[in-house]
Amino acid sequence: MFAKRFAGLKPYVPGEQPTDRAYIKLNANENPYPPSPEVEKVLRDFDPALFQRYPDPDARELRSAIADMLGGGVSPEMIFAGNGSDEVLSFVFYAFFDSDSPLRFPEHTYSFYPVYAGYYDIPVIKTPLLSDFSIDTEALSEGPGTGVIFANPNAPTGIYLPLDKIRNLLDSVPRDRVVVVDEAYIDFGGETAVPLLAEYPNLAIVRTFSKSYCFAGARLGFVVANPPLIQALFTTKNSFNHFPVDALTQKIGIASCRDSRYYAEINGRIIKTRDSFSASLRKAGWDVLPSLANFVFARKAGLSGRGAYEAIKREGILVRYFDIPGITDFVRISIGLPADMEKLLAVMSSL
Amino acid sequence: MFAKRFAGLKPYVPGEQPTDRAYIKLNANENPYPPSPEVEKVLRDFDPALFQRYPDPDARELRSAIADMLGGGVSPEMIFAGNGSDEVLSFVFYAFFDSDSPLRFPEHTYSFYPVYAGYYDIPVIKTPLLSDFSIDTEALSEGPGTGVIFANPNAPTGIYLPLDKIRNLLDSVPRDRVVVVDEAYIDFGGETAVPLLAEYPNLAIVRTFSKSYCFAGARLGFVVANPPLIQALFTTKNSFNHFPVDALTQKIGIASCRDSRYYAEINGRIIKTRDSFSASLRKAGWDVLPSLANFVFARKAGLSGRGAYEAIKREGILVRYFDIPGITDFVRISIGLPADMEKLLAVMSSL
Repeated sequence: MFAKRFAGLKPYVPGEQPTDRAYIKLNANENPYPPSPEVEKVLRDFDPALFQRYPDPDARELRSAIADMLGGGVSPEMIFAGNGSDEVLSFVFYAFFDSDSPLRFPEHTYSFYPVYAGYYDIPVIKTPLLSDFSIDTEALSEGPGTGVIFANPNAPTGIYLPLDKIRNLLDSVPRDRVVVVDEAYIDFGGETAVPLLAEYPNLAIVRTFSKSYCFAGARLGFVVANPPLIQALFTTKNSFNHFPVDALTQKIGIASCRDSRYYAEINGRIIKTRDSFSASLRKAGWDVLPSLANFVFARKAGLSGRGAYEAIKREGILVRYFDIPGITDFVRISIGLPADMEKLLAVMSSL
Repeated sequence: MFAKRFAGLKPYVPGEQPTDRAYIKLNANENPYPPSPEVEKVLRDFDPALFQRYPDPDARELRSAIADMLGGGVSPEMIFAGNGSDEVLSFVFYAFFDSDSPLRFPEHTYSFYPVYAGYYDIPVIKTPLLSDFSIDTEALSEGPGTGVIFANPNAPTGIYLPLDKIRNLLDSVPRDRVVVVDEAYIDFGGETAVPLLAEYPNLAIVRTFSKSYCFAGARLGFVVANPPLIQALFTTKNSFNHFPVDALTQKIGIASCRDSRYYAEINGRIIKTRDSFSASLRKAGWDVLPSLANFVFARKAGLSGRGAYEAIKREGILVRYFDIPGITDFVRISIGLPADMEKLLAVMSSL
């Protein structure tokens, strides 16, 4: 009954969403602050009659607003918007990575990458992280391959790769291989690779509104790249689903882009919370990787990730562990409100 | 720079959305009435803080509401919801139709089907329509093939295929081949194939909120099928994008399902408008195919579809023609408000 390609699917598993009791939810890297007040205004003023008509399939006004928000010479023709960065990444895999030569990504990175590769039957080579859990850019650029993808800051480590290392990587990869930098967590202290687009036609940068723009529930992600790559993503989208971003999401996205000061403020608070939480956790005997994301990756000698996760869950707090060799002793902790992090710190200090 | 699979893409082209002047828009089968007043209530009451968290990836409450709306023993486990029926159809093609045996569909039907086939490299066999432009179910069930898909009522003809013909088709197709009935336009006078699900485990029915539920701009579609097929669609979705239906769309979808009386009322008006418009157009010398959809397909001796389209556009009304051999003499006209159809009738009568 099912297609042969279906037989090989191994779906992505997101952070759990249990409903058995109320938890402090620090397991999906969601933003603990609400979206900009401008989003509420759009919701209150939105004319439902706009739902009668198909939305702008090219999301032109939204893409202009994103380009304006990014600044630095980015034009709307350099933006592609979709239903969350997960959908956008799927189109990126379809358009840029071949089935007859391997795609390279770090052994530990966003765990949806191997799932997309499976969806489109793209062979992969996973390159081990360095001993400090940072990305080995030399290994990523070695040998044959259709392309390269990694998250920066990386997940689930939180470790940021400086732009000079990305530049070195781009310099050692042939210009006909696309290099994708997934900047889902870039707004929490890292420096974006957007300025490198002027030099590298084969660079594509993926972004999401889910984390720093509080839009996990609204589904909006985008790509920044030079126009030929963006055109390819439009062709791909138009062969899959013409209208992935609905009329209302286009409008709240625009309102959010125009209030980026608000998001800089709340994300600044998250950075502060992260840094003080990390410092306290280290004092409590935990090994905390240096993070420029809205989460930290931590372990304690003698504790398994799963064991820590379960002990923390018993106290009403959800974090995440990974049943993946090499990182089984870690838990990934999303940065929430200061009061919630205090509670978690008390629990983790006692383990 | 691009993957080899990308080279073969031929994107779908939707009805145009020109912005050079205000048109009466009868070219995309959109609903001329606004969504239920319950949708506006949801919009006004929606807490933007819900956007902070990922939505329910399984859309459980929405699927329950859809099952309740459908009635007739349909359970939530028989529903899969996605970002418009376009996305849902893409998952259907991925999960059910193979790349090494041909998929059959009518020569003239929803023009996105060959696009999906191209996206996933699925060979197709197009079966000619009968001389009255109805679907040839015998040709569809002949010979080898992975599966069958067609729209009922069909697009762009508007012609409805009675359930006994669908039953005959299902009886002559092996049970390991999936038969997909795309019921995008079923709420405008046709009888749904949902009752056949009790007998045919290989039947999948695709629906959309875009037409009869005034949600073209909100993006919501679904599949009704037996649980094993639905499970396969979940696995597919979870390998592509975990959260295609955002938090707000889940809520306005639920509100709409619970106010199906409202939609029955407005769609009843559309049916009335369609039937009187068709009768008047016939009196004016046009050949109008019998439609049970929210559009009609019409031609007049001596006029090309494109010629009619252009003459009508000059008068400020958009309809659609197809540059496809076999139907080049037709225009497809969405049913709008009665006053707009009067204007169009005046224009078309003068051609």
